[in-house]
Amino acid sequence: MTPAKTSVHPALATDPKIQRNAALHLGLDIGGTNLRLGVFRGLRLLSEYRTAPDLSEVCRHAGNREDAQRLVVRLVGDAIADALCKHKQVQHIGMGIPGFVDPGNSLLLQSPNLQHLENTDLISPLQKRFSLPVCLVNDANAAAYGEYLLARPHHSDLRHLLYVGLGTGIGGGLVLNGQVYPGAHGSALEIGHLIVEPNGRVCGCGNRGCLEQYASASGVKLSYTEYTGCHKTARDIGQMADAGDRSARQAFWQAGRALGQALAHLQKILDADLVCIGGGLIGSWPWMAPAVQSALDADLIPILRGRTRITPSSSADCAGMLGAAYIGLETAEVPHDE
Amino acid sequence: MTPAKTSVHPALATDPKIQRNAALHLGLDIGGTNLRLGVFRGLRLLSEYRTAPDLSEVCRHAGNREDAQRLVVRLVGDAIADALCKHKQVQHIGMGIPGFVDPGNSLLLQSPNLQHLENTDLISPLQKRFSLPVCLVNDANAAAYGEYLLARPHHSDLRHLLYVGLGTGIGGGLVLNGQVYPGAHGSALEIGHLIVEPNGRVCGCGNRGCLEQYASASGVKLSYTEYTGCHKTARDIGQMADAGDRSARQAFWQAGRALGQALAHLQKILDADLVCIGGGLIGSWPWMAPAVQSALDADLIPILRGRTRITPSSSADCAGMLGAAYIGLETAEVPHDE
Repeated sequence: MTPAKTSVHPALATDPKIQRNAALHLGLDIGGTNLRLGVFRGLRLLSEYRTAPDLSEVCRHAGNREDAQRLVVRLVGDAIADALCKHKQVQHIGMGIPGFVDPGNSLLLQSPNLQHLENTDLISPLQKRFSLPVCLVNDANAAAYGEYLLARPHHSDLRHLLYVGLGTGIGGGLVLNGQVYPGAHGSALEIGHLIVEPNGRVCGCGNRGCLEQYASASGVKLSYTEYTGCHKTARDIGQMADAGDRSARQAFWQAGRALGQALAHLQKILDADLVCIGGGLIGSWPWMAPAVQSALDADLIPILRGRTRITPSSSADCAGMLGAAYIGLETAEVPHDE
Repeated sequence: MTPAKTSVHPALATDPKIQRNAALHLGLDIGGTNLRLGVFRGLRLLSEYRTAPDLSEVCRHAGNREDAQRLVVRLVGDAIADALCKHKQVQHIGMGIPGFVDPGNSLLLQSPNLQHLENTDLISPLQKRFSLPVCLVNDANAAAYGEYLLARPHHSDLRHLLYVGLGTGIGGGLVLNGQVYPGAHGSALEIGHLIVEPNGRVCGCGNRGCLEQYASASGVKLSYTEYTGCHKTARDIGQMADAGDRSARQAFWQAGRALGQALAHLQKILDADLVCIGGGLIGSWPWMAPAVQSALDADLIPILRGRTRITPSSSADCAGMLGAAYIGLETAEVPHDE
């Protein structure tokens, strides 16, 4: 496992009073390709570890649930063991995973990125191996909770936070009254599949016009190809937008417009205090923000106009690990602004 | 004040074990025209009182906030006094009102039906007059809580209930983890203004294609007039649908389709255990239900398909009073299935 270059991210280095609590918490951000582990004291990231076990590929090759479970538990467990080896005071392990997690028994119900892991218990074998409490949560909910913990010291009245992660796909997470809200079946906040363009682009879910087809990295690539006939990565399109390329900026404008339409739906339903936008596309937020705002201004009802606070994430993609590290704990164990 | 004809509604006559609690609770359903008061012991409606003070008209004539507040507090207070006169054991008064209620200080922020009552305290003068705790809540949230209390004995795992009231307009209410969710500014669940037909019918909110323009009583009337050129009341259209009229049935089909589209948005965001549909249009539910289901089947993502339980309200429009009667109380004071 490779220790990541930076061990303390500036966005996470907060009020030293918060560091009084000596307990360490380990948060994992489990992706299809990468695995990231963060060791936290309070809100402070002490160490970060990154590895690339390519769990998507591992699961695909496994062919059945038992093998997939055994391999994932071993690979994730070995990474945890490495981190615990250096940080023996860790008292709690939380894991964010791309997929639906049963809010009752914490089984992984299904993951679009990790085949064969339907209705799978990833927690018990890890709890047994490490004799520590282990929690599992949807990765966007982990990020929502992390953003909530980071934002709370700056917004004294913060209770309800909506998180939107713009990556290859789009994930949504929600904190209500300071608690992650997973929904009745762990399927809440499937906002990538809110329909924003009836009869629009075909989506993998079987519908047309889902938000994900416009405002994710894949959506931005599709838009750019539509305008120019050229194929570029979202990162390239972002750099071209920064350099003034009109088609690239237009692709992000279209992403922002679709996102604003979806946020209008979301805020008419949720009326959250704060909307935090994160994920890999956030570097291109300046090219999306005006379209987001103009769609919100158009679609919101009068009482909500001007009240929807939207902020790009400043956690440098560490919110998922932070949120996972503190998920499932009693309020007293979660870092507070003391 | 006229005592209503029925004093115990069958839908509310439940397990006698629930009646052990001797305390009475008074719930008000404050409408623009009518005022309804229900005295409850547990889930049981002991007495219902109805009067028609036409508060919309009263407020319009008042001309300013102070006069509107004084008149509404007097009229509502006199109705409460009548009910308390006959039921001296009432220990708590809750009021559901059509409007936005500040979740922090319970001020009425704004009501589309009651002019001049912006940022108005309706609670303190009534608490002073009766020396009893008084709560104020949005009427659709009161109905959501009432439906939750009524459904709970039959759904042991019920935690999250979404209520949709199809009346002249459309109201939405939400119970999450057994508590009413008002949103950060009391503006959550503004589902009548979810846009279901981009560039569709003009709505009073300034947008086009809002759900309310299709699935409310007003929406059904507009649809029927579009098909036939004739103007009828929603009640007439409902009776014509029952009698087999194709245009009437088509108007309800269109209402159901719009409702299904909105419910798909709502469930992708909320993933509620149960969706309860109430309001004046519910008598025509059989003409809407198939279209609701077909729109849900089309628009939901696979993991949510078949999991969205939708039920028409069976509370005979008493859920709003019931929910109001128990709003703001400690869990121990709310009737349980013992």
